[in-house]
Amino acid sequence: MKAKVTVTLRSGILDTQGKAVEHALHSLGFTGVHGVRIGKHIEIEMDAETGEAAKAALDEMCKKLLANPVMENYEVRLDEKGK
Amino acid sequence: MKAKVTVTLRSGILDTQGKAVEHALHSLGFTGVHGVRIGKHIEIEMDAETGEAAKAALDEMCKKLLANPVMENYEVRLDEKGK
Repeated sequence: MKAKVTVTLRSGILDTQGKAVEHALHSLGFTGVHGVRIGKHIEIEMDAETGEAAKAALDEMCKKLLANPVMENYEVRLDEKGK
Repeated sequence: MKAKVTVTLRSGILDTQGKAVEHALHSLGFTGVHGVRIGKHIEIEMDAETGEAAKAALDEMCKKLLANPVMENYEVRLDEKGK
């Protein structure tokens, strides 16, 4: 089963990497850009009996390793056809 | 207009960060995991007249700054309702 996890900084947290990219885009002439936030995109291939079991495992992975729940949000999407 | 850009390593390129996360997940007991790849998730807010103009600008941003076309693939998604 394939899964995609997106980890993003919570909205109140300053995203310095995003700010740097925003400034760089302005320097390159993309002046219409007024907000850049950068997160992680994680693709995981895993064995799981059911979609629910996979989602539960992924949720635990996010809490234990992939995301920092204090500063980050995460979103899990299952690619069921990859089962 | 809001856009989301996902930048991933091309399939032939060794993803050391992904390998490290895979090993860490195994150590945590998630033994069913057998493939992790890590990329970037970028959220951009921008001004654009039309969806086509936004997509063209985003494509240029990816080529010039956000992705390294030699090693990385990118995917652009527009959130039209954020217009």
